[in-house]
Amino acid sequence: MENTVITISRQYGAGGRELAEIMAKKLDIKLYDRQIVHIAAAKLGINDLSEEELLEMENQVKPLSMSFIPFHSFGTHMGSSSQEMFMSESAAIRKLAEDAPCIFLGRSADYALRKKDNVFSIFVCADDDFREKRGQEVYDGKSLKELDKEDEKRARYYNYYTGRTWGAGENYDLVVNTSSGNLEKIADGLIAYMRTIKG
Amino acid sequence: MENTVITISRQYGAGGRELAEIMAKKLDIKLYDRQIVHIAAAKLGINDLSEEELLEMENQVKPLSMSFIPFHSFGTHMGSSSQEMFMSESAAIRKLAEDAPCIFLGRSADYALRKKDNVFSIFVCADDDFREKRGQEVYDGKSLKELDKEDEKRARYYNYYTGRTWGAGENYDLVVNTSSGNLEKIADGLIAYMRTIKG
Repeated sequence: MENTVITISRQYGAGGRELAEIMAKKLDIKLYDRQIVHIAAAKLGINDLSEEELLEMENQVKPLSMSFIPFHSFGTHMGSSSQEMFMSESAAIRKLAEDAPCIFLGRSADYALRKKDNVFSIFVCADDDFREKRGQEVYDGKSLKELDKEDEKRARYYNYYTGRTWGAGENYDLVVNTSSGNLEKIADGLIAYMRTIKG
Repeated sequence: MENTVITISRQYGAGGRELAEIMAKKLDIKLYDRQIVHIAAAKLGINDLSEEELLEMENQVKPLSMSFIPFHSFGTHMGSSSQEMFMSESAAIRKLAEDAPCIFLGRSADYALRKKDNVFSIFVCADDDFREKRGQEVYDGKSLKELDKEDEKRARYYNYYTGRTWGAGENYDLVVNTSSGNLEKIADGLIAYMRTIKG
């Protein structure tokens, strides 16, 4: 599994970010989220990314932050500038994926890397009860309705740019249900699965 | 994982039956498919199922048959008799699940057993290219359109009786994509996942 790159997409409130962080820690590999991919995409036009720059980017975000980041960069109107941003983010993802094993959280990375053999893509979901509870506890009291609204935006963005259906099993290697709440065990299970498949 | 009961639902042409057979063999547990559940449901009204009867039922089906069984017992019209059949099949599934670790293929077993802690439910899907190829090779030249039509019936049946959405991640523990075609490895991977989660 040496060179495996993992992509994680997720419903809000399903614990996808926490699961990604646990897996990155267990595998001792980097986790790239929205902010890092965003910065990488912005820098990619100027020069290639050095190891120092990657480290610098990582220091700009709290890696274990559970804060709720509203998905406001892209509205319902998908203009040419967001098309460009999608393209440059995808290029940044492909560049980062070449460097070393890593995990991408969101950013349609499964699609950007769909032609690569060493990529393992996961979609994280959970039932409404679990997400509602987690919305209250982890995301500053967000209601299920608010979580669903964010998910609609994510789905719209993904579907628009990839021509696929967000969350549909056939776009990922595995769709995992975190409703049991045991993210540590699920992370171990996913690693065991990947090692068996890719090893 | 001693007492784990596994349910497998699947898209036509994704290799779900073959995957179920491989897993049953690897785990050395029984595989109950549509025919067995059907017979069990019919017998359940008369008397409890003995070990001999279970064996007898198993001998009535070719366990490794890959034949394409059209889903014709239930049409689009869901009358009271199919409601009764759903109820008695669900009862039969719960009865069979009590006896020993086993795998259920189809029959909305994930729903019938949703309240049991020892149940691990899997949905098997694949991309269109893979299913189309498999339809040609394994299912007597069925076209993707024919496979999709059967899936629509399955979805309608499942959605009608369970109030859930067939194939939606939140109804299963895992949704697995078999498009790689390596069912042996995927079976090993799923067993590794389950052992990690349940062990």
